[in-house]
Amino acid sequence: MVSYIQLRDFSKQVFIKMGCPEEEATLAAKVLTSADLRGIDSHGVARLSGYVRLWESQRINASPKLTVVHETPSTATLDADAALGLVAGPQAMNLAIEKAKQCGTGWVAVKNSNHYGIAGYHAMMALEHDMIGISMTNASPLVAPTFAKERMLGTNPIAIAFPSENEPPFVADFATTTVANGKLEILQRKGEEAPLGWIQDQNGQPTRNPSELKNGGALLPLGGDREHGSHKGYCLGGMVDILTSVLSGANYGPWAPPFVSFLPLPEDPVGQGLGHFFGAMRIDAFRPASEFKQHMDNWLQRFRSTATVEGEENVLIPGDPEREMETKRMKEGIPLLPAVVEDLCKVAEKFELNFL
Amino acid sequence: MVSYIQLRDFSKQVFIKMGCPEEEATLAAKVLTSADLRGIDSHGVARLSGYVRLWESQRINASPKLTVVHETPSTATLDADAALGLVAGPQAMNLAIEKAKQCGTGWVAVKNSNHYGIAGYHAMMALEHDMIGISMTNASPLVAPTFAKERMLGTNPIAIAFPSENEPPFVADFATTTVANGKLEILQRKGEEAPLGWIQDQNGQPTRNPSELKNGGALLPLGGDREHGSHKGYCLGGMVDILTSVLSGANYGPWAPPFVSFLPLPEDPVGQGLGHFFGAMRIDAFRPASEFKQHMDNWLQRFRSTATVEGEENVLIPGDPEREMETKRMKEGIPLLPAVVEDLCKVAEKFELNFL
Repeated sequence: MVSYIQLRDFSKQVFIKMGCPEEEATLAAKVLTSADLRGIDSHGVARLSGYVRLWESQRINASPKLTVVHETPSTATLDADAALGLVAGPQAMNLAIEKAKQCGTGWVAVKNSNHYGIAGYHAMMALEHDMIGISMTNASPLVAPTFAKERMLGTNPIAIAFPSENEPPFVADFATTTVANGKLEILQRKGEEAPLGWIQDQNGQPTRNPSELKNGGALLPLGGDREHGSHKGYCLGGMVDILTSVLSGANYGPWAPPFVSFLPLPEDPVGQGLGHFFGAMRIDAFRPASEFKQHMDNWLQRFRSTATVEGEENVLIPGDPEREMETKRMKEGIPLLPAVVEDLCKVAEKFELNFL
Repeated sequence: MVSYIQLRDFSKQVFIKMGCPEEEATLAAKVLTSADLRGIDSHGVARLSGYVRLWESQRINASPKLTVVHETPSTATLDADAALGLVAGPQAMNLAIEKAKQCGTGWVAVKNSNHYGIAGYHAMMALEHDMIGISMTNASPLVAPTFAKERMLGTNPIAIAFPSENEPPFVADFATTTVANGKLEILQRKGEEAPLGWIQDQNGQPTRNPSELKNGGALLPLGGDREHGSHKGYCLGGMVDILTSVLSGANYGPWAPPFVSFLPLPEDPVGQGLGHFFGAMRIDAFRPASEFKQHMDNWLQRFRSTATVEGEENVLIPGDPEREMETKRMKEGIPLLPAVVEDLCKVAEKFELNFL
């Protein structure tokens, strides 16, 4: 068990050693470890050594100059100069928020970026401004469209956050696949089988063996199979790919760069780096914010009190599990798997830092 | 088999008899029958008598005054004055397009409306302007959130359309449930069972019997069950509900008014009518439109040529099936079920019109 503060400060020191200016290292560490805090362990410090390796292979620029390459009153396209997505994401979201202050909504597409941690972090930045926040990113291709055996899309998450008055806000943050890649990694480690509908093998046949993903198989779009609407999950993944990457000028679909540095970059890039897309909508651009937030409270209370199926305690509000985890881990600390601790110790050694 | 023109013109005459001004009747008929043309038979003339009954019960206003009740440079909220959604939808989308011309993007929330036909019609209006089009609506509660046995959400569709250069555009239009209600109606008529994951009975237990929906059961969010990500479908349905209805001031969640006039309106409304949400984003607010459209062509060609699972001919692009159906039905005519023909004949009789 490690305290959140320790984990965040260690991450910050690592980013500083990579050459990030202090302010950006602080931000990157906060974004990264918000994943650990919220229980999305696959996207937190478990990835820190991966970021370091991307920096070592010169795919991440620790001292980037972010440039607005195109804009209108409500939009902008940002060239992230190969920045950490953990830095480019919040800066782009802040720009969206500033634009929303001026003309009601703000929309920022980002190219030439890298992985940006959890989508929800960026979306939630809008809440304190009484805005709706939206965040999406593309990612390394792991997902086969309906009827396909090739990996064409990333797990391409969507996050949206709606402010409320007294109730906790509605915060949805989910991969557009049946299941996140992190859950498969856990099954692999435990040697357990996956339910049908999560993955297919390299021939596109259903399989329960999570290792098939490493053997050329693929994750399945939300829905799982055609009969259960996987074409809709494919639509969502495709939508995220186009908004984040075709619109910004990043690499889309199968051209999205891999997270792991040992895989080569595609030889025929169609754009620059990874792409993100952010939106901020001022509530009072549509109706008085206090009215909306009171109705949100009513919405949240009504859904929370929905009659449940026997055996289920209550209907959840999107964001409930992560918020509860955050409260718990902020108090009790964050449990790390032995493999992650080992990994972080190696990072510490590389940079002559102390990890715990 | 009825020709599209005949079906559209008959619908127009019906709307005129209801008291719609000619221009609005023309528009409503075009939007309604675009569903028949595109093969989404549940949302076309099969619903015409339903619209008539809503008008008879004074839930639809045939000569409404649409009013902008709130706006900023990039947003507006429209009070549709109980209009046909078939009329309010295109007018709101046009407003979004005008706003996008001015400041890059336009976003319009609509309250006090009614059913608006297929979501895709409105989203596709953006294409000819080199804009991305977005369209969503809430609908009568039929869907149970994950772990719930109550119906709390409509099938709440999302449509998004992306322009392209020489390839046909990407047009996604889908309910945020495993399956659309129309498919269940077909199974009921045929006396066939549904796959597990489509519906649950009134106790929230899985069932294959499509009639359970009428007995107090519910449709399931995209994903089908918790293990396959139904909480993500619930997030999407909730997002649509909030954007269309909490943001606009319409009735949300279980308060959404029923489509069928024989069901009473909820006694304690939380807003006015049904809600929609529209968006238009100018491509050249992010990058030159020609660049984007060339990359879209590349995206579409690459995805269309994805290696398929054995036995599957090709990977589809969102919008392919509907476009092919449109070409076919425009040429060959539209097949109508005997029950629908009978229904339309009754409408014709009521208004002293000739149906065919």
